[in-house]
Amino acid sequence: MSTTSQAAVLCAYNAPLEIRTYPVADQPGPGEAIVRVEMAGICGTDVHLWKGELPIPIPVVLGHETVGRIVKLGAGVERDWRGVTLAVGDRITWASSIVCGECYYCRQKRQPTRCVARKAYGISYNVNDAPHLRGGYAQYIHLRAGSSLFRLPDTLPTEAVIGAGCALTTALHGLERCSVTPGDTVVVQGTGPVGMAALAVALHAGAEKVVVTGGPAHRLQAALAFGAHAAISIEEHTTPEARRAAVFAEVGPYGADVVVECVGHPSAVPEGLELCRDGGKFAVLGQYADAGSIMLNPHTITRKQLEVRGSWGFEPRHTDMALRLLDATDWKHKFAAQITHRFALAEVNEALETVKQWRSGKAVIVP
Amino acid sequence: MSTTSQAAVLCAYNAPLEIRTYPVADQPGPGEAIVRVEMAGICGTDVHLWKGELPIPIPVVLGHETVGRIVKLGAGVERDWRGVTLAVGDRITWASSIVCGECYYCRQKRQPTRCVARKAYGISYNVNDAPHLRGGYAQYIHLRAGSSLFRLPDTLPTEAVIGAGCALTTALHGLERCSVTPGDTVVVQGTGPVGMAALAVALHAGAEKVVVTGGPAHRLQAALAFGAHAAISIEEHTTPEARRAAVFAEVGPYGADVVVECVGHPSAVPEGLELCRDGGKFAVLGQYADAGSIMLNPHTITRKQLEVRGSWGFEPRHTDMALRLLDATDWKHKFAAQITHRFALAEVNEALETVKQWRSGKAVIVP
Amino acid sequence: MSTTSQAAVLCAYNAPLEIRTYPVADQPGPGEAIVRVEMAGICGTDVHLWKGELPIPIPVVLGHETVGRIVKLGAGVERDWRGVTLAVGDRITWASSIVCGECYYCRQKRQPTRCVARKAYGISYNVNDAPHLRGGYAQYIHLRAGSSLFRLPDTLPTEAVIGAGCALTTALHGLERCSVTPGDTVVVQGTGPVGMAALAVALHAGAEKVVVTGGPAHRLQAALAFGAHAAISIEEHTTPEARRAAVFAEVGPYGADVVVECVGHPSAVPEGLELCRDGGKFAVLGQYADAGSIMLNPHTITRKQLEVRGSWGFEPRHTDMALRLLDATDWKHKFAAQITHRFALAEVNEALETVKQWRSGKAVIVP
Amino acid sequence: MSTTSQAAVLCAYNAPLEIRTYPVADQPGPGEAIVRVEMAGICGTDVHLWKGELPIPIPVVLGHETVGRIVKLGAGVERDWRGVTLAVGDRITWASSIVCGECYYCRQKRQPTRCVARKAYGISYNVNDAPHLRGGYAQYIHLRAGSSLFRLPDTLPTEAVIGAGCALTTALHGLERCSVTPGDTVVVQGTGPVGMAALAVALHAGAEKVVVTGGPAHRLQAALAFGAHAAISIEEHTTPEARRAAVFAEVGPYGADVVVECVGHPSAVPEGLELCRDGGKFAVLGQYADAGSIMLNPHTITRKQLEVRGSWGFEPRHTDMALRLLDATDWKHKFAAQITHRFALAEVNEALETVKQWRSGKAVIVP
Repeated sequence: MSTTSQAAVLCAYNAPLEIRTYPVADQPGPGEAIVRVEMAGICGTDVHLWKGELPIPIPVVLGHETVGRIVKLGAGVERDWRGVTLAVGDRITWASSIVCGECYYCRQKRQPTRCVARKAYGISYNVNDAPHLRGGYAQYIHLRAGSSLFRLPDTLPTEAVIGAGCALTTALHGLERCSVTPGDTVVVQGTGPVGMAALAVALHAGAEKVVVTGGPAHRLQAALAFGAHAAISIEEHTTPEARRAAVFAEVGPYGADVVVECVGHPSAVPEGLELCRDGGKFAVLGQYADAGSIMLNPHTITRKQLEVRGSWGFEPRHTDMALRLLDATDWKHKFAAQITHRFALAEVNEALETVKQWRSGKAVIVP
Repeated sequence: MSTTSQAAVLCAYNAPLEIRTYPVADQPGPGEAIVRVEMAGICGTDVHLWKGELPIPIPVVLGHETVGRIVKLGAGVERDWRGVTLAVGDRITWASSIVCGECYYCRQKRQPTRCVARKAYGISYNVNDAPHLRGGYAQYIHLRAGSSLFRLPDTLPTEAVIGAGCALTTALHGLERCSVTPGDTVVVQGTGPVGMAALAVALHAGAEKVVVTGGPAHRLQAALAFGAHAAISIEEHTTPEARRAAVFAEVGPYGADVVVECVGHPSAVPEGLELCRDGGKFAVLGQYADAGSIMLNPHTITRKQLEVRGSWGFEPRHTDMALRLLDATDWKHKFAAQITHRFALAEVNEALETVKQWRSGKAVIVP
Repeated sequence: MSTTSQAAVLCAYNAPLEIRTYPVADQPGPGEAIVRVEMAGICGTDVHLWKGELPIPIPVVLGHETVGRIVKLGAGVERDWRGVTLAVGDRITWASSIVCGECYYCRQKRQPTRCVARKAYGISYNVNDAPHLRGGYAQYIHLRAGSSLFRLPDTLPTEAVIGAGCALTTALHGLERCSVTPGDTVVVQGTGPVGMAALAVALHAGAEKVVVTGGPAHRLQAALAFGAHAAISIEEHTTPEARRAAVFAEVGPYGADVVVECVGHPSAVPEGLELCRDGGKFAVLGQYADAGSIMLNPHTITRKQLEVRGSWGFEPRHTDMALRLLDATDWKHKFAAQITHRFALAEVNEALETVKQWRSGKAVIVP
Repeated sequence: MSTTSQAAVLCAYNAPLEIRTYPVADQPGPGEAIVRVEMAGICGTDVHLWKGELPIPIPVVLGHETVGRIVKLGAGVERDWRGVTLAVGDRITWASSIVCGECYYCRQKRQPTRCVARKAYGISYNVNDAPHLRGGYAQYIHLRAGSSLFRLPDTLPTEAVIGAGCALTTALHGLERCSVTPGDTVVVQGTGPVGMAALAVALHAGAEKVVVTGGPAHRLQAALAFGAHAAISIEEHTTPEARRAAVFAEVGPYGADVVVECVGHPSAVPEGLELCRDGGKFAVLGQYADAGSIMLNPHTITRKQLEVRGSWGFEPRHTDMALRLLDATDWKHKFAAQITHRFALAEVNEALETVKQWRSGKAVIVP
């Protein structure tokens, strides 16, 4: 084991990440773990962070989708989140966030994703604070006590876990809050990673038909390969009215039972309301960054008696479910196949640029 | 029984209603009933109709909140909706709408309030079509086969039924779709009839605290008399920020568990989203007329992982529940006390003007 | 079209059905339809009826799972339940029951399967009452006004519809009331038609693992072919304790998230309670006939904080969903493959005997 | 502060508790607290424990319903469960159980009341293990780190908290799992503390009518004083059939929407199933001790398509809600009025005998 680790650090917004070197702790504290990173996913959120669209305590080591092998375990770390025995050398992943378990949202309202003290690897830790290595874009990561660790079974490739990334856990949480019932018709707005994951989750929940809207063409092809019944190009159907007509040609003249917004641009929300049938459901999963306001007619919500559900992040139990479903189904292969680009740690800026320009399926760093 | 009936007819938007005379049918057809109107409520929607804000087939006899006594029963009308025996002379009320029971929304999606062929007394019937008398602002009303009739028990005064009006059934449906759990803190935006009814329903469902926002002062006093724990004046707190601060002083720094919008102006919707705690619920009940779009930031829905629910109209079972609850509780007295103004049929335009100017609690016509 | 129809009539319990001849009405009344039966399924309930285990007004033409072609349509029958145009020659099926729509359960409690006036084809009609032909074990059936008809698309074979039979609609209703969530482990007790259908529905809803218990061997093979992850023989594991051990070896030491009882013998219920994990769900779908009481320890329900759900029959919307899912998935082939035995109408007693002795997958009559 | 504490210890089943003396720790450990007991409730479960009907590690200091004042706080105990600041001298209560937060039920299935390592004050701690004082029947109690403490507001009397006891939290949990909807008719079987609490919770949730069955006469009077619409004596109506007739005379011929079993004897469960309307709900809250099996016909569950829900214990959030509701409503007075008997610690055996013989409302120890 090395005594130092390289890490890609976001030091200034919209500027290249810097590769810096930090010491790897000799011995992790009680409950902690030190992990050699095998693969780190580049999430769309990382691009938002890079652009400064979310407030974070830079300088920060990015990377919140990570698989690695345990190199050192602190006292008391004997089992993973599921109770499986852990040992040095085990391949693991972990839920990116840690919550306090004590605040108003954790305790009284059981909304842990809204914990007032929630911190996420690759997002919430200033690299200047020891032990420095709190992000996945690095050779080593130093995990806090209280992290939700998951030992990966040999049957589950690292590529499947990172190919699914936090998009899958986000979609599982979102469609838990806004559930698809067997037989439903579903529209997924957006064919980025969250859209692909929402498509997978909706199909798995027994949707009769899932229509996606998005682009570019290679993403629509990927959606069809994943099982979408129809894929509507936003490049071909350039207005909300045209897209609505194309969607209704697939789902019928009343609209879809469930619409899942995975776009991120505010305009997707009023457009999505119009794609729901009356009495239908609308999951707003994509509005992670604050991209501003949009004109929206709330009469639609009353008149169509809609159910609109937001969802933020995910809990460790969604990571558990994601890993179980990946291992038990053909998702294993389908999500692994999302990975189209691999980069060394030193190529991190090229990697981010690739994601920013929508050129990849899923891009990963192999540090 | 008279052979003719006077009726107040909306002939042109924004113009005085005309008092016209129509024949009363000698004998109702199978399933029909002819009723002598005892009292008709003036609903805020009637003002919207008067102003032409909703599309209706004028000329129309207004009035969709009505109590009267049966004067003639058609063949086969032997029992009311609950199975109670009906006879000439019985005092009854009825659900204002009739649905087809066969369309996509009635059958396949069980959203009867969105029936594609739904017709409502006092709204959907052109007075020129026989039997003409299809609204409550009249001496007689001629009810269709398939109407949901409710015989009123002697213990339940007409004033209680009309004082509650369709606001109570609207609130019962709305808070069925967006339920208040015992112990919840609730904000009701708006102190019109729907707001007062939502307040009553929320308290009945076990809310720990209900705060209303609205005006003018006499409405806030009425809300406090109805049991609101606090009433915040929109005349005193003139900005969304000021109202939010006043609400949070009552419900705590995270916002309310449930917010119920009963205002009607689109701006109440983005304001209401900010009054919910994270993971809270927001019922959008007031956006009945299409009053246009508003700037709204959908990031709020994702980040606060909100549940937003629209609700449209009500079903006969909500009328059933409204009447049962009125009869079983002190609502009987509280809703009857909402009636502050009574008008003869000939005074109908003065009555509408009173409601339009927010001068009344509840205004009624005694034809 | 023939002017008479043969029909198999249950005249006395435990005695052979008699083949009798009845006139086919010249012209159906308003809302009615006359159908040439193509295929009628033999349901396990028919055996119960044969044995006199349920009260019915014999003599009765049995048969409540039927596909046929319209030969005559009464006035006003223009569209099927879904609004699809109907014409003479169309191949259709229909929901077996008609409800009143007006009673306490239909209206006030929205439990139409518990309608106090519900009548089912093949069960509730005395053959001596004109028009006599009210069951599927016949060349012709005369359908009442108010029947829920479904035109079958050309893509959906009759064998698929009858192979699924009322078992599928029963399972859809049961697992709507006691829902399987994606990722759940499920145990299905029983490998008769309802058990096979529950297996299919649980898999479709995203169950991670479905284990069946039942027999004989050919039924366990069929369950594995249908997608069960494990099939536990009640012939090999002859005690509840042995079956519990075999189930827990598959689902883990805490029990299953959802257990679905599709057996019919009362002893399956206390056994099933022990197969649930704490906080799990138990659907009691199989106790259709009153087979008496059983010793059961209710402490189990409290201590394990279980959710136990009964479900009775189904509604037309479940027929709609069954047909849609059959047409949209590989269920089409899997359920058609359940049909292992075909009989002519004259062989009806042999057909019933085959089902009674558990020799068939699904047995059908081709009259 | 004393350096020793007397405690009433269950040393042998069915034998008198012994008053023993233990040292009070000089300084509590990190996260711990030492509390001077003001009042301890005698729960029906204590009688079951006394009789040896539940397995516990005797010798044990009984008492799991307790209010006291903090005399010493360990390091790090700065705030209560709600975040309220804590100080020596504060009057507090606490949730009786502590869960591990890590096991299959805590984490994966979110059923913390079924935590495999759950321990309860007054039940699960052998008095021979230091620090000995782990039950409420004592002058002092030594609380573990991880206890859920609640500072009591001055407006909430100790008598209200102990008068409600764990019966109220049990009822809140039970009726959270098996919810009463506004307008429901409810039957509560049993007029012991859990029955009284279930009555209160059902009324608070907006039940239109609540009928109790139980006895003896003083308990029925108490139920009527608490707001029950009718109280049916099991001494007057001595058969299930007679009780059913008396209940149906109150709730109508179809049965109640919700039935809540709070009796404890297994026979209450088949009886309760018959009191539900079809499609109704049945909460099984009373079967805490294993009192054996009973003959039960599961056909009832299928045919009536019932929903049956067990519930075990409660979580700290139910204690939070109980305290909030007690403070906010007239429950404060009603539950305090349940206390009919007060005993000194030395009179503990007389106290238990009083509860065993159903002579008291609520009996308490003032040590």
